[in-house]
Amino acid sequence: MRAVVMRDRKLVVDSVPDPVPGPGEALVRTLACGICGSDLHALDHADAMVEAAREAGSPFALDPERDLVMGHEFCVEVVDLGPATTSRLRPGDRAVSMPVLLRPPRIEPVGYSNDVPGGYGELMVLGAGFLLPVPNGLATEHAALTEPMAVGLHAVEMARLGKADVPLVVGCGPVGLAVITALRLRGAEPIVASDFSPARRRLATTMGAHVVNDPAETPAIEAFRAAAGLRPAVLFECVGVPGMIDRLMKDAPRAARIVVAGVCMEEDRIRPMIAINKELSLQFVLGYAPHEFAATLNAIADGRIDVAPLITDRVGLDDVPDAFERLRSPGDQAKILVEPWRR
Amino acid sequence: MRAVVMRDRKLVVDSVPDPVPGPGEALVRTLACGICGSDLHALDHADAMVEAAREAGSPFALDPERDLVMGHEFCVEVVDLGPATTSRLRPGDRAVSMPVLLRPPRIEPVGYSNDVPGGYGELMVLGAGFLLPVPNGLATEHAALTEPMAVGLHAVEMARLGKADVPLVVGCGPVGLAVITALRLRGAEPIVASDFSPARRRLATTMGAHVVNDPAETPAIEAFRAAAGLRPAVLFECVGVPGMIDRLMKDAPRAARIVVAGVCMEEDRIRPMIAINKELSLQFVLGYAPHEFAATLNAIADGRIDVAPLITDRVGLDDVPDAFERLRSPGDQAKILVEPWRR
Repeated sequence: MRAVVMRDRKLVVDSVPDPVPGPGEALVRTLACGICGSDLHALDHADAMVEAAREAGSPFALDPERDLVMGHEFCVEVVDLGPATTSRLRPGDRAVSMPVLLRPPRIEPVGYSNDVPGGYGELMVLGAGFLLPVPNGLATEHAALTEPMAVGLHAVEMARLGKADVPLVVGCGPVGLAVITALRLRGAEPIVASDFSPARRRLATTMGAHVVNDPAETPAIEAFRAAAGLRPAVLFECVGVPGMIDRLMKDAPRAARIVVAGVCMEEDRIRPMIAINKELSLQFVLGYAPHEFAATLNAIADGRIDVAPLITDRVGLDDVPDAFERLRSPGDQAKILVEPWRR
Repeated sequence: MRAVVMRDRKLVVDSVPDPVPGPGEALVRTLACGICGSDLHALDHADAMVEAAREAGSPFALDPERDLVMGHEFCVEVVDLGPATTSRLRPGDRAVSMPVLLRPPRIEPVGYSNDVPGGYGELMVLGAGFLLPVPNGLATEHAALTEPMAVGLHAVEMARLGKADVPLVVGCGPVGLAVITALRLRGAEPIVASDFSPARRRLATTMGAHVVNDPAETPAIEAFRAAAGLRPAVLFECVGVPGMIDRLMKDAPRAARIVVAGVCMEEDRIRPMIAINKELSLQFVLGYAPHEFAATLNAIADGRIDVAPLITDRVGLDDVPDAFERLRSPGDQAKILVEPWRR
């Protein structure tokens, strides 16, 4: 099959062996797969990512020296089932899935595994038990947004918002926009959001932010104060570059909670005294639970979440390296979908 | 009066003007005042401390170029009341107080103010409304431990322990020992504690730790795992030097909560990916609320907390500079009390 391969820390389009489903697995065709900021990070910082996972005792065992087909935000079509595999899904059915393949004793993170390909290729194998059918009528490209939107839902769940809490979302890339969407779904008000990009600020409004700020004109925390008054602050860090955590700690009101949803893969510096003086808390979050993934699919399918505005481009495999470059200075882009069947 | 003065970033014993109580204030004689690790930090890192407080928007406005009489863990005797001041306390009565003096619009942090002296001098002025009478029969030197023990109580309150949670206290200096005491008072079990010093490990046991570990022999986290199994982890960072937060993040089990009670005044480095991978949370804590301070005095007075083992030495003013030096490599020391009346 054809796939975008990360090889020698670069992306190349090449032919790779078709994956073969084992017992309990399904062979699927990738219909659409979103490009995630983590994939850009992984391309630049694969070694740091592997080292951090190892230090954290995670079973994650990527080898940056070997080929890797990334892509973990997908909607697929079932092609075939592996041996001795039962499923309520039939060949031709569409499905989404958490990007995890259980091959005991290993857990393969689909999209970050050297041994199974992710969604930037024509075919994948997925656990048949993880497949969730796409409800009738839901567009494939919208179903493909389930994974990144689940990230936002989970971050908001982990924040355990009280009624008085006012959220400030710093950074309106795909993670920030997913957080805004989940906050709106939950009924938080006002939702304050901040981003340097005019296009992303427009998307923040579209997805449900009540107050949208340009930090080049006004510091985000001032926009927050004007909207929230003295209500408790919950700050969502959705940028993920070094210095952001310290910056939010410096800006945060006393007793604020900071939810770190941005993924900073480099070492970072903080000044603990600032956090101590204000008794801040930090909650680091990652991914989602299976029930949150399923709830997100349902919310998209029944129209409580409209993900259509988030999709800003669609590319075939040959254009993925270029799409990565464009996402480095995102400008107008939010989510770019890879459609491996597209010529 | 005589006092230990921080001048040009050194401690000297000198005569300074007697403080004068204003309306609503009491003139008090210092009977005993504990030396706090923060005072050692302040001597070494006054500029960083002031800068961090300023960055945090704290009203704290210490000028390291001016004289400072430190000391904020005290038991006092009322000498006189200021003009137009009423109090249930009479001259000769003993009292403790939170180390705060309200002089609107300023809030003077007693012990870190250039304008009012702390407990390393013979006399202080305190707000009459903040004075809590020492209950009959409670020893002065035990009452003086109210402040540092309240720090432990507050840290444990902020941890919001559930029944299944198992605490690991890393560092058994005065802060760690106060945390252990508060955990025991709350009924947490098992309490796991870790310190390189044999004397401090003995004190940890005395104050109520069930499992006490020597990290030179066994990593603290292994001792924790052996005692806690898979129960949720709440790690108390009670060391306060650079690198400890990252170290605990690296060692922490998945979903652990880290309560940062140690006061690291320098810039610090963390690897966010480690915390993200394990979805850790950090709660930074400082000080205590007035009700926690009063509850601590009551717990000491009615014998639920026995602070006697924590007092390892008593010195007069002339010996304070030497006591600071001894506390730099604490060995057998926990709390050294300054008794300004002692010759």
